[in-house]
Amino acid sequence: MTIEVDYRFPPGVDPYKQAKIIAVGQTVGTWDARFAHREKALRSHLGEVLSVRTDPQTGCSIATVCFPEANVENDISSLLVMIFGKYSMAGAAKIVAVRLPQNYGLRPKLGIAGIRERLGVYDRPLIMAIFKPALGLSATDHAAILAEVADAGLDIIKDDEILGDLDIAPTLQRLDACREVIERVKQKTGRTLLYAINLTGRADTLLEKARLLVRQGANALLLNVLCYGFSVLEALVADAEIQVPIFAHPAFAGAICAASDHGMAYSVILGTLMAHGGADAVLYPAHYGSLPFDASEEGRIRNILRERNVFPVPSAGIHPGIVPKALADYGQQVILNAGTGIMEHPDGAAAGVTAFFEALERATKGESFALEALPPGPLRRAVEKWGS
Amino acid sequence: MTIEVDYRFPPGVDPYKQAKIIAVGQTVGTWDARFAHREKALRSHLGEVLSVRTDPQTGCSIATVCFPEANVENDISSLLVMIFGKYSMAGAAKIVAVRLPQNYGLRPKLGIAGIRERLGVYDRPLIMAIFKPALGLSATDHAAILAEVADAGLDIIKDDEILGDLDIAPTLQRLDACREVIERVKQKTGRTLLYAINLTGRADTLLEKARLLVRQGANALLLNVLCYGFSVLEALVADAEIQVPIFAHPAFAGAICAASDHGMAYSVILGTLMAHGGADAVLYPAHYGSLPFDASEEGRIRNILRERNVFPVPSAGIHPGIVPKALADYGQQVILNAGTGIMEHPDGAAAGVTAFFEALERATKGESFALEALPPGPLRRAVEKWGS
Repeated sequence: MTIEVDYRFPPGVDPYKQAKIIAVGQTVGTWDARFAHREKALRSHLGEVLSVRTDPQTGCSIATVCFPEANVENDISSLLVMIFGKYSMAGAAKIVAVRLPQNYGLRPKLGIAGIRERLGVYDRPLIMAIFKPALGLSATDHAAILAEVADAGLDIIKDDEILGDLDIAPTLQRLDACREVIERVKQKTGRTLLYAINLTGRADTLLEKARLLVRQGANALLLNVLCYGFSVLEALVADAEIQVPIFAHPAFAGAICAASDHGMAYSVILGTLMAHGGADAVLYPAHYGSLPFDASEEGRIRNILRERNVFPVPSAGIHPGIVPKALADYGQQVILNAGTGIMEHPDGAAAGVTAFFEALERATKGESFALEALPPGPLRRAVEKWGS
Repeated sequence: MTIEVDYRFPPGVDPYKQAKIIAVGQTVGTWDARFAHREKALRSHLGEVLSVRTDPQTGCSIATVCFPEANVENDISSLLVMIFGKYSMAGAAKIVAVRLPQNYGLRPKLGIAGIRERLGVYDRPLIMAIFKPALGLSATDHAAILAEVADAGLDIIKDDEILGDLDIAPTLQRLDACREVIERVKQKTGRTLLYAINLTGRADTLLEKARLLVRQGANALLLNVLCYGFSVLEALVADAEIQVPIFAHPAFAGAICAASDHGMAYSVILGTLMAHGGADAVLYPAHYGSLPFDASEEGRIRNILRERNVFPVPSAGIHPGIVPKALADYGQQVILNAGTGIMEHPDGAAAGVTAFFEALERATKGESFALEALPPGPLRRAVEKWGS
């Protein structure tokens, strides 16, 4: 099996020359007569230029290079080194697509099906909130916030990605405080609420901490994959002790993906590589949220993730008023993740959650979200604040 | 202590507004009256805009934002999340400098002083080679190549960064085969030769493998830090069993650093973050090598690394003819790293190493590198091929 990579070059770059440099320079390199006895082995590791096409309108070219799977270790890190390691420094080129063999890398342990099963919710998008303010609260504060949103029926909550294992609210203390709320909700209502707790630290301590957290009752984990490393994600996924969903956060993705002629497409990093890295759910910016994001790129991420049973989590600027659009665009297999869109509801976080469920019900029935059509209550208050 | 970060914005971006968004949005976020009782704690975690200045010539602005050290975990990964995590996706902005407290993060266990001590070489740049072809050779082939360059007096050799733990030449087999050569050289000449062997795999298996390799006699390690994660580098540095130098490879740096208005400067990633991540030596493109690289950015990397006793390793396109320029520009505290510049010498790899030592001697004496001035021999043959 081979790995296919599409490199996009801006006008003025010779795509044939560059594709050849990649196919040779990112694999075996050159050799001379001294290695004639290894000719066959060396040749079997070479990359190959499959096609080069230039868009007459933009002048941009896309070259497809294929690489032998034998050159890499069935993981994302060695793949990154091969397809873009040194070449990333060679000039203007952006990786816009990576096609991997189906069995390359890992699959989510739980993914869409497993997360739905844990929650017992099968027929609607899941609603996820983020603890806000992002940091500066105590573990007890976190538990108090959780109690509010839990009683309103929230499915999942996550730490803000910048909240690490800080003195003011150590990770284990947050877990202990929040677990009590989760257990109470379970006993009272039978409902499960997932808390994706943020994993931080050096690779070794992070992995140990993950096991400890799971032993102590953590039912979901959050990882800033691009800041800690795909190798860390893969270690978590491969760990038999960790049987809880891993939520991958896109922090730092813009540093790799936002430039037009350098780096890699968002759909490669947050789609293909996360999906083959074994994440159970992947957060990414929703195109009608607060971050600038291309709708077609978002669509690609969503499709790539779903194809491997990974839950897409459109995020950033999500609020109850966008639910009809989200349902129409995203369908049911999605986790709607709102930070301020829940936590800064004018009537409090619980009202923020209720507003989302009202919105889901109303949107499913096809009812209007025009302000004058909305009855008094949390949804109307949300739409008054954030629009629809 | 605080952490200071310089963000550069292109013309047309409001730097005051963006700096404020960073200072608040990448720390606490906003809060309302419900959190009045936590006002003091929340406020203590906020970032602050220190200055904004616009270059009247270019229209670019640089905003300096400072962050409380209490928001992060004294490591690189949590730092990346804080200073650029979500904001990296917010629009055009490039991080061009990061100033960390002296005691932030880690220091190299060996660094310049320690590597020199291991080698017993104090008075000249070190010479480093790379196994070529990059992959497709057997472990025995590697040992045969090593024997050639070892006898010529090479200081350090490294795997090509794309050579993982592949069936054709498993990492441990490469070590075993090459260790015999290293031991023979030691017995015969008393000289130490370092072999920076490439560490790959999932975070957990990589760390185990590193310990195993060191137990089996590995005397240096190579890590593609940006593909495997700073958290993995830090775990290696913190590991008491690993008392050998760690060479950090810049593979993938261009994906983060090459764009003008996105990502982070090379000097931040390959300088500041590697130096505070605990690497002993850091490879980066030399500005007169084969990759396009800015001389002033290279100078910044070199200075930042040396300030923390980290060995700068200018690479890519280095050959014997550039030694006079390298000595003049870089001074002695540098490792000159040549791949093809040694391995593809017309008279073989051993002649490639000899050519470097000839070049060092000649350059030190201030003798001409003009072709007509060079006596017959390896240096002349190298200059004939690659120029000076």
